[in-house]
Amino acid sequence: MGQRSIDLNADVGESFGAWTMGDDSGLLAFVTSVNVACGFHAGDPRVMDRTVAQAVAAGVALGAHPSHFDLRGFGRRAIAADPAEVEADVLYQIGALAAFAGSHGKTLVHVKPHGALYNQAAVDPVLARAIARGVGRVSRALVFVGAASSAPMREAAAAEGLRFAAEAFADRAYEKDGTLVPRGQPGAVITDSTEAAARAVRIAGEGRIAARDGTVIDLAADTLCLHGDTPGAVAHARAVRAALESAGITVRSFVS
Amino acid sequence: MGQRSIDLNADVGESFGAWTMGDDSGLLAFVTSVNVACGFHAGDPRVMDRTVAQAVAAGVALGAHPSHFDLRGFGRRAIAADPAEVEADVLYQIGALAAFAGSHGKTLVHVKPHGALYNQAAVDPVLARAIARGVGRVSRALVFVGAASSAPMREAAAAEGLRFAAEAFADRAYEKDGTLVPRGQPGAVITDSTEAAARAVRIAGEGRIAARDGTVIDLAADTLCLHGDTPGAVAHARAVRAALESAGITVRSFVS
Amino acid sequence: MGQRSIDLNADVGESFGAWTMGDDSGLLAFVTSVNVACGFHAGDPRVMDRTVAQAVAAGVALGAHPSHFDLRGFGRRAIAADPAEVEADVLYQIGALAAFAGSHGKTLVHVKPHGALYNQAAVDPVLARAIARGVGRVSRALVFVGAASSAPMREAAAAEGLRFAAEAFADRAYEKDGTLVPRGQPGAVITDSTEAAARAVRIAGEGRIAARDGTVIDLAADTLCLHGDTPGAVAHARAVRAALESAGITVRSFVS
Amino acid sequence: MGQRSIDLNADVGESFGAWTMGDDSGLLAFVTSVNVACGFHAGDPRVMDRTVAQAVAAGVALGAHPSHFDLRGFGRRAIAADPAEVEADVLYQIGALAAFAGSHGKTLVHVKPHGALYNQAAVDPVLARAIARGVGRVSRALVFVGAASSAPMREAAAAEGLRFAAEAFADRAYEKDGTLVPRGQPGAVITDSTEAAARAVRIAGEGRIAARDGTVIDLAADTLCLHGDTPGAVAHARAVRAALESAGITVRSFVS
Repeated sequence: MGQRSIDLNADVGESFGAWTMGDDSGLLAFVTSVNVACGFHAGDPRVMDRTVAQAVAAGVALGAHPSHFDLRGFGRRAIAADPAEVEADVLYQIGALAAFAGSHGKTLVHVKPHGALYNQAAVDPVLARAIARGVGRVSRALVFVGAASSAPMREAAAAEGLRFAAEAFADRAYEKDGTLVPRGQPGAVITDSTEAAARAVRIAGEGRIAARDGTVIDLAADTLCLHGDTPGAVAHARAVRAALESAGITVRSFVS
Repeated sequence: MGQRSIDLNADVGESFGAWTMGDDSGLLAFVTSVNVACGFHAGDPRVMDRTVAQAVAAGVALGAHPSHFDLRGFGRRAIAADPAEVEADVLYQIGALAAFAGSHGKTLVHVKPHGALYNQAAVDPVLARAIARGVGRVSRALVFVGAASSAPMREAAAAEGLRFAAEAFADRAYEKDGTLVPRGQPGAVITDSTEAAARAVRIAGEGRIAARDGTVIDLAADTLCLHGDTPGAVAHARAVRAALESAGITVRSFVS
Repeated sequence: MGQRSIDLNADVGESFGAWTMGDDSGLLAFVTSVNVACGFHAGDPRVMDRTVAQAVAAGVALGAHPSHFDLRGFGRRAIAADPAEVEADVLYQIGALAAFAGSHGKTLVHVKPHGALYNQAAVDPVLARAIARGVGRVSRALVFVGAASSAPMREAAAAEGLRFAAEAFADRAYEKDGTLVPRGQPGAVITDSTEAAARAVRIAGEGRIAARDGTVIDLAADTLCLHGDTPGAVAHARAVRAALESAGITVRSFVS
Repeated sequence: MGQRSIDLNADVGESFGAWTMGDDSGLLAFVTSVNVACGFHAGDPRVMDRTVAQAVAAGVALGAHPSHFDLRGFGRRAIAADPAEVEADVLYQIGALAAFAGSHGKTLVHVKPHGALYNQAAVDPVLARAIARGVGRVSRALVFVGAASSAPMREAAAAEGLRFAAEAFADRAYEKDGTLVPRGQPGAVITDSTEAAARAVRIAGEGRIAARDGTVIDLAADTLCLHGDTPGAVAHARAVRAALESAGITVRSFVS
């Protein structure tokens, strides 16, 4: 039997200086948690200030979205960073965002690594642990959001005394081992909103999903990620949320 | 009659990546407060982590040293930044440093703007106010350290409900209006340790100093800045501290 | 009597990493020269490579658009950079762009400073000269594009043996001294394409324009700038070009 | 039988803004080629200008030292950059440096990738080829300097019609397969100047060296790298050069 509630999260605040990205206002109507860029892959201080204000107004849970220091690559390039560097980078970024949250009367709820840092840590226990240490040095009340299928992330959170929230993707295909089909491979990204919505319901309702080869795999998730930087992102988000609610699944933050 | 105690502060943590600067360990033996670079003009997260650890071990008061976002120019170039940008930049940098301080069991005591941001704000009430707003949004318990002669800084702190700590320089010559003789002019910088020490004693003990033209001016200071990036910085610091103590002036943080 | 030909220029290649800006392809159909961002305010090496290829395919003249080193501020913030720094920055950026141009079989025709660097140099002979020195150190065959009303830019070009091309703006209001009405003031920016087109014809055809107060002033221009980062930029460009051609004015690069 | 001449190269111009690194002036007396940082891992435009001037005055051959875009990591962190990005980065950096060289009356002789880019390309044919394409797009007269033991680099140079110069290290231990013993392992770095000098003579004179396990391996080198960022770098350089000359080996640029 599956869960009766799930969180919907989105990456927000990914504009920088004169450049804008995504439709944060559009997504905020459908999600229950946001991961705010902290200046390392996107998001300058003014963008962070505005994004936090919007998120607070929308009543969603606030989380940090720390990255490698890589504006040029938008944090999507794997970087062989030293674990001590990653730990300090994570601590720095959470601290910076926490100041904005605090000045808007809120505390941060969670931390979800961004892009390459997420992908590297998903398979690298040392890096996952460095992230968890950075998170834990700010507060053990913070939730570590990571890939549902990543043992390194789950174990790193546990080792640092942090709650782990498992993230799944309604718009991405899975292999039978629970990892994502890499972008660029046929069928890796589900572009049809109806299909994505149906997959969201199955993940949230049954805790399972059909892998690419048809095998039904366990996929227990605390939160589903809604991508904001794709065309039709808002329509996607609306469809997923409506389908979940129609199926009787409560959409709410994992801390509410 | 002058004061019987004064704070000695130094700018620290100004290394970056593979590059080192200053002799933080040497200075820490003589100062009672440090202003830690926050990544915008110098200081990457690992440098900040290490610097905070050293400062905590030395028992000195921790403050943030926020700057314009200007690694290339070391924060020394005046930038026509929007006040809203400066406010957010200050908030961001204090937040980042506060996370390191917190993880080492400490809270930040003060904020002193760096370089061009300091110099611009000293004469620009709008910019001074933007800085004070950024500080106040983190905590009204933070002390705003600014130029003893700057009415804009003093008034901005007051307007935001912040305590102001007046900073003077024992190794810099003053004009009779209380402003610094610009670097590059003859006699602007006092390089002789004995003379700097004597000036420190006069400022701390009498609250006065002889300006360049001989006029004795009021110069009430809560803290004296010891420069760390000059040859002989440590010898200078030792001489100033010894002279103050010989004169019966207690050297201590402005919050102790 | 006015000129019978004029150049139309646009700033292009202002995307960066994952962020896009402007509609370069749309503008390339109407302009005869482009100013390519060189990585300091926008434009990373891949963007530069692609932009140069597009410009070469469109048959327009290639120029460099050097800036202060200021991605965060998009080069729009005045920075008190040392003249020697500006000279070296200009040299660096032209060299980088020239390599892309060369590998596409072209040489650079001109250099137009960007944003704050342009505005600062327009009124600062020392900075204008630093830019001209940077340009001249690459090649005295390069044309220095600057504000029609700027004596410092015109004289700096002459002093370094560079040809000067005077730039005017069909979509900006002028004061009677030939300077631009600052953005933000009422009527500073002409948003109506028909009006901008009529102004373009008057500048190109008569070498004069009506200033904000109605005074008709001389405004001899070699090139008109078409802004690309505004809504309706392409429609604007189309209208200006069509109006010029209808008026019998040849639109061509200032070196053709 | 070995060669009777060899080039000595050093990485120079690795200061940045307010931070200095290395003793370029000290090394310039002993080397015949320099690899100049181009702003991506170190070296801002003013540093490049000054460094090129010094190198020209010293009469050594000028080469570019392009890197991943990574000031924070000094270019030493492996980054999973797209080959098209690396190609454009290399082109950009060579172009920027070529402008300084040109304004000092010189042309660039060679290109040697820096740090992680060098190490990644040494074992990755796709990346090595991307670098070679970037070099070749500037000029096929440029020499590609790479690891003596790297087939990917050698082959990439050949495929793009570039001359390859094989680099060896007199102060690093080799494995029997010709790769370097990784830094951090015992004996990886030879710190004794006399031993380094003896190894330089053997490599240059016999084209062979004893690997860590005692096996004598072929190591035909066109150039030896002298590190500049280590204590005693200048003494090391002096010892190596003196030993080579005593052994009757001519020290000269590989293009002279």
